[in-house]
Amino acid sequence: MTATLTHFDAQGQAHMVDVGAKPATHRVARAQGCIRMQPDTFALVAAGTAKKGDVLGVARLAGIMAAKKTGELIPLCHPIALTRVAVDFELLPEASAVRCVATAETVGPTGVEMEALTAVQVALLTIYDMCKAADRGMVIADVKLLEKHGGKSGSYVAEP
Amino acid sequence: MTATLTHFDAQGQAHMVDVGAKPATHRVARAQGCIRMQPDTFALVAAGTAKKGDVLGVARLAGIMAAKKTGELIPLCHPIALTRVAVDFELLPEASAVRCVATAETVGPTGVEMEALTAVQVALLTIYDMCKAADRGMVIADVKLLEKHGGKSGSYVAEP
Amino acid sequence: MTATLTHFDAQGQAHMVDVGAKPATHRVARAQGCIRMQPDTFALVAAGTAKKGDVLGVARLAGIMAAKKTGELIPLCHPIALTRVAVDFELLPEASAVRCVATAETVGPTGVEMEALTAVQVALLTIYDMCKAADRGMVIADVKLLEKHGGKSGSYVAEP
Amino acid sequence: MTATLTHFDAQGQAHMVDVGAKPATHRVARAQGCIRMQPDTFALVAAGTAKKGDVLGVARLAGIMAAKKTGELIPLCHPIALTRVAVDFELLPEASAVRCVATAETVGPTGVEMEALTAVQVALLTIYDMCKAADRGMVIADVKLLEKHGGKSGSYVAEP
Amino acid sequence: MTATLTHFDAQGQAHMVDVGAKPATHRVARAQGCIRMQPDTFALVAAGTAKKGDVLGVARLAGIMAAKKTGELIPLCHPIALTRVAVDFELLPEASAVRCVATAETVGPTGVEMEALTAVQVALLTIYDMCKAADRGMVIADVKLLEKHGGKSGSYVAEP
Amino acid sequence: MTATLTHFDAQGQAHMVDVGAKPATHRVARAQGCIRMQPDTFALVAAGTAKKGDVLGVARLAGIMAAKKTGELIPLCHPIALTRVAVDFELLPEASAVRCVATAETVGPTGVEMEALTAVQVALLTIYDMCKAADRGMVIADVKLLEKHGGKSGSYVAEP
Repeated sequence: MTATLTHFDAQGQAHMVDVGAKPATHRVARAQGCIRMQPDTFALVAAGTAKKGDVLGVARLAGIMAAKKTGELIPLCHPIALTRVAVDFELLPEASAVRCVATAETVGPTGVEMEALTAVQVALLTIYDMCKAADRGMVIADVKLLEKHGGKSGSYVAEP
Repeated sequence: MTATLTHFDAQGQAHMVDVGAKPATHRVARAQGCIRMQPDTFALVAAGTAKKGDVLGVARLAGIMAAKKTGELIPLCHPIALTRVAVDFELLPEASAVRCVATAETVGPTGVEMEALTAVQVALLTIYDMCKAADRGMVIADVKLLEKHGGKSGSYVAEP
Repeated sequence: MTATLTHFDAQGQAHMVDVGAKPATHRVARAQGCIRMQPDTFALVAAGTAKKGDVLGVARLAGIMAAKKTGELIPLCHPIALTRVAVDFELLPEASAVRCVATAETVGPTGVEMEALTAVQVALLTIYDMCKAADRGMVIADVKLLEKHGGKSGSYVAEP
Repeated sequence: MTATLTHFDAQGQAHMVDVGAKPATHRVARAQGCIRMQPDTFALVAAGTAKKGDVLGVARLAGIMAAKKTGELIPLCHPIALTRVAVDFELLPEASAVRCVATAETVGPTGVEMEALTAVQVALLTIYDMCKAADRGMVIADVKLLEKHGGKSGSYVAEP
Repeated sequence: MTATLTHFDAQGQAHMVDVGAKPATHRVARAQGCIRMQPDTFALVAAGTAKKGDVLGVARLAGIMAAKKTGELIPLCHPIALTRVAVDFELLPEASAVRCVATAETVGPTGVEMEALTAVQVALLTIYDMCKAADRGMVIADVKLLEKHGGKSGSYVAEP
Repeated sequence: MTATLTHFDAQGQAHMVDVGAKPATHRVARAQGCIRMQPDTFALVAAGTAKKGDVLGVARLAGIMAAKKTGELIPLCHPIALTRVAVDFELLPEASAVRCVATAETVGPTGVEMEALTAVQVALLTIYDMCKAADRGMVIADVKLLEKHGGKSGSYVAEP
């Protein structure tokens, strides 16, 4: 049954899977996540995008830099030479939330889903860090893969 | 208005806040998060805790090690000498989900909320990584601070 | 003669100096550096501070995060728990240059000169990186310690 | 106008540029920098190259190791598999200065200018660190790209 | 005579060797090492593999993650995109010892001997760390390369 | 029985032990290890200490820098602010071996045995790396703690 968990060998021991025989193909992954906050906190974040106190600018950089650290953070991830990382934010005033979408790309033998997800998680954590003096009750939710393309397993697109 | 966002100075520029005059006190923070998955995936994870293919054992270590990297990941976090980190998991069969609770402690001038949250996020990402070949639709949600104690701002306990 | 180079022992071998008996005192260091560029490049950088394309915002974060990595970069530096880091920029239109000033603080047994200097160097390198497609001839100069306070050797203030 | 700052997208937000479609070619970059010091300090450094207290040997290693960390330090740099790094020093007795020249090479889709410049900066900072107990007034200057070859933008050679 | 030490140039200075012209081939390296301990300590380790307190599971992950850090630890190593890492343990009850064997693979211009050896060393250090409260006299020994294949120098297999 | 393995909690799960209530005391640890090589290889290493090709100088720095990374490498180690690190080598011509002794010190709540051992292991690995083109059969052995002082468990001195 554990056969479908590829990060374990036949004895059930963790290992970094062999990707040496897989061809280098173009890989893209897009992931998202949201952070919900108090309306007052949301107003501070929204104000910063136009003026001083650019919370999202800091969070964007944190997400991009974290994508490059994915192989250090996730124990069985392969180190990957990313060819592109982008982190975008969408203000959701009605939900008093910020949505983060990260895209990661590479040309290589393994996918970049974890890189996109790591960028989202660290970008959202950074928003939490920067706003926590005002609002400790923020909640991060709906973190998931939106789509991925390339590689033997082909494309995956999340249901809306 | 940005005055409440302490990570910006009077000109609205990001900085690492001065904590040099704050006394070293005992700090604790506890954070949580969940990952929801297909029932078949959940069965694989649950089976691994008793036998081979210990997904949660790997995720626990990843979370503990990530807590030590918080200051590298979150741009304006102070480096902190953690005195304790623990990561626990709870299997939620009815929700087909795993709940992660992380605790971080230090004796120092700043809190450890970000360390606890980072441990949760990376532990959950590691579960995603190890199960993604079987289930790409897993969703991470309900990531939040449960409680924190110590420091000038005192205690915070999330509403249930 | 090498006695004055404290990073070598009596045999002339590199070591990390013993600071275990030095008391923890408040330490501050301030360092600076400049990057000169083409007037057109300078105009791009200056425009970004008010609008889109915030080169200095990115460079500021890079400098702050690099200060935390000083002990990893400089072989014989002690790891230091920084209590404050700030990176500021001054636009020098007549010189077509940007001046960077970084301040680092800690409460500990060793000084933070290297942390302030590392923040300056990486902030300036980041400006170089972000503008190099437009101008490869930029020059970094006048990188030096402005002042430092605290510790047995007391205060140092650079001559103007 | 920000169009020439490739590290920002059309909305002026920082991103890691897409290099996935660029062919892997041989890339070389050579950068330099100087550190000026008191004649007594210079004499200590010069003596160490022949005998004990090898300041430049330590600085050389620091520069080589820092080149490998460029992608961690410079926020929007791509991670690069360096194929060669060399750091050389030239003693300039008349100027009471040390000149550092670093060379970086790779076979890949992006240039290695930042790797060469980072090696120079960290090598010079290490000299500062090792000599600062004797001389806090050292100044780092004239840090610049000497030449780079390979890639779509072709060769660049600095004017003498 | 130093000509055979390829990590030094003609002047005897350390450098990172040029591998830019070497073709990318499949590389494998296998290394081993042992840790000897008190019989009581050995019993604790052996018990953990079947039940709670999984010392070897933690050490396996530490070894795998350390392999990815080889280029950061060994000054003149090239950064390598590992395609596989596995760490296995063998219980040697008669010797009251644990043997660790690590395998590293890549497709690239340089070998992975150091990655395999680093995985072994850190895995054994982790066993030491986890058991040291019970037994400070443990000894690590017989750390060596077992075999390596690929590249211009071809295969090496250690004598038994 | 696992009670004596302090890195596991009552449920047998790995955690970073709570040291928040332990007083900060002066801690010292000294560890050693050896690397045996062919007599020709030994001659190269011995020659380098006096002239060009300073293998031991590079290995010394690698060991010192690795001691600062111990908390990143060993999963359940606490991050420690080292106050001193020294790495020394002894040439053993009769055994055609090099002996490495590393000393680590701190003032804190936990010991520095792992820091001293990590310095030894990485210093010896670096010697292996630098000499492996000449001699792949080198063996690292006799890596152990020599002594440690400070903390509740007091002093430990290895039997000769």
